[in-house]
Amino acid sequence: MPDVSPELLRDAVLGHFRTSAIKAAVELDVFTAIAEGAEDAAAIGKRTGAAERGIQALADYLTVMGFLEKTGGRYKLTPSSAVFLDRRSPAFLGDIHRFLAAPEILRLTLTDPAGFVRNGGSVGLANTAPNDPVWIDFARYMAPFMAPTAQAAAAHFAGRKPAPGRILDIAAGHGLFGIAFARQFPAAEVTALDWDSVLAVARENAAAAGLGSRFKTLHGSAFDVALGGPYDIVLMPNFLHHFDEATCVGPLVKARAALAADGCMAIVEFVPNEDLVSPPMPAMFAYVMLSSTPAGTAFPPSALNRMLAAAGFREPEYLPLLPTPQTLIVSQPA
Amino acid sequence: MPDVSPELLRDAVLGHFRTSAIKAAVELDVFTAIAEGAEDAAAIGKRTGAAERGIQALADYLTVMGFLEKTGGRYKLTPSSAVFLDRRSPAFLGDIHRFLAAPEILRLTLTDPAGFVRNGGSVGLANTAPNDPVWIDFARYMAPFMAPTAQAAAAHFAGRKPAPGRILDIAAGHGLFGIAFARQFPAAEVTALDWDSVLAVARENAAAAGLGSRFKTLHGSAFDVALGGPYDIVLMPNFLHHFDEATCVGPLVKARAALAADGCMAIVEFVPNEDLVSPPMPAMFAYVMLSSTPAGTAFPPSALNRMLAAAGFREPEYLPLLPTPQTLIVSQPA
Repeated sequence: MPDVSPELLRDAVLGHFRTSAIKAAVELDVFTAIAEGAEDAAAIGKRTGAAERGIQALADYLTVMGFLEKTGGRYKLTPSSAVFLDRRSPAFLGDIHRFLAAPEILRLTLTDPAGFVRNGGSVGLANTAPNDPVWIDFARYMAPFMAPTAQAAAAHFAGRKPAPGRILDIAAGHGLFGIAFARQFPAAEVTALDWDSVLAVARENAAAAGLGSRFKTLHGSAFDVALGGPYDIVLMPNFLHHFDEATCVGPLVKARAALAADGCMAIVEFVPNEDLVSPPMPAMFAYVMLSSTPAGTAFPPSALNRMLAAAGFREPEYLPLLPTPQTLIVSQPA
Repeated sequence: MPDVSPELLRDAVLGHFRTSAIKAAVELDVFTAIAEGAEDAAAIGKRTGAAERGIQALADYLTVMGFLEKTGGRYKLTPSSAVFLDRRSPAFLGDIHRFLAAPEILRLTLTDPAGFVRNGGSVGLANTAPNDPVWIDFARYMAPFMAPTAQAAAAHFAGRKPAPGRILDIAAGHGLFGIAFARQFPAAEVTALDWDSVLAVARENAAAAGLGSRFKTLHGSAFDVALGGPYDIVLMPNFLHHFDEATCVGPLVKARAALAADGCMAIVEFVPNEDLVSPPMPAMFAYVMLSSTPAGTAFPPSALNRMLAAAGFREPEYLPLLPTPQTLIVSQPA
């Protein structure tokens, strides 16, 4: 790109075509068809039930974007597409579009972006409305994407003595964080807290993981429900970013009260640097929250430190959950 | 990015946030506010009438995307943003989002992408419907983006002897191609053909260019209207890609019949290489047409050669309109 060029502008304005193409490709299982041996547009079309000219334009654009390689009219998957976009792969992630580009999310993102910027957050509760069904999509379709994050978080606690006996998973969603901790500590009992409609997904995942009676649920809002306890670990994964700093203190105070004296708070968040513009994913996540919540954001360490101190916690440790873009924040009661 | 990573997938699925942010920034004139001296989120918010926290998240994301630079809480424009996104700049292009990400285009792109791929084109006429108002948005908001392309196309004809006297601009839209040729040849008369609603925009642009009575209009569809003639040059800018190859032959035959014996056809298109996956913009444009027309595409030279031969033209010359991603295709009657 030359020094002065409209390309960046043009590509950003056309961003919705990227969303569109990946949605179409995953829904039609184009990547799976190619992995199964359909090599050209005619064969992929036959296998997916789509018109050859539709597949041609789609597969060429997927090649331009870097999802496919094309040689002499034949397409093949890149190594990343083979791992994450072939539906038969254990690491298949294609269905994240069913949450990240769900009709409700697209509506919030695109209908009036100047409106939510002007307003400093979504007009209305958006995705923070009680029992918003978008969280069922989240629990169902984002689980495979979050699994490596949950495993990395649990791995940070490996060897903890004494082994935690009771674990609370606040805003559990798919339940994968609690489930990863239950696997790490085979004697532990996990209580997953979320809307009842969402807990149905967590229960399925816990059953599939064979947790049996070690998995309990508590339904409702983390702001309202009595948490019980004492717990040895309270997990709060991807919860705080939906609210402003002052609002976050309330659930943290409740969590602290539900912790054993030697218990431990384990928060998972997108944590941008203090410059708020790096790394890219945690930094852009503040805009995602601006579009979909009245007051949420991606908190840098200074803000997380302040809210934890206000809730009676010690200064936390920040542990990057590599290779994911998220960070584990561990803190003990002061 | 490591060799195997879900980053490409995640960024593509989140493509709609790029569209959203640039739309918000241009509508609120954030770039202009920064160019006028508002440096931090508070000052930009004050100048644009937006909440500081909304501007904070937006400007940080714009920095992540490369539109802004941020140092110690202060934002400044990159050289490209200063040229193309400050509304006071003569090369301002920000309003292209009003066409490329218009509500109607977003609806076509995102509502059911698997549907138009399966169907091999839009279900229904989409943007090829007679008098579709989206073409008024096109004419109004894409003109500044197309101006360098029109100027480069006209420049290719500089010094042509004898100087063309009559020029027809088929599907003129904003009229900029005909206007650029009228400027190149001060004695030439230009006839712009398009829907009458769209010609209103072309007439405004021709008046602003001071063409006076040298600018004529002809309203209706290039498929139906009697073209008149003979013309020395027939322009057909960004028209053929809306139709399939067979359909394109009809208007080309009509254009040939309207040309003087030593006349010349001047087509402007996105022309991908025969591999259909390079260069990026012409290649991805086939997907844009898939989403918004029943049978349109981006034609490689082999297809353009075939349709021109079928319409009675000689093998054309392909002239890249650098630095734009478009190509001028010049052909004489056989």
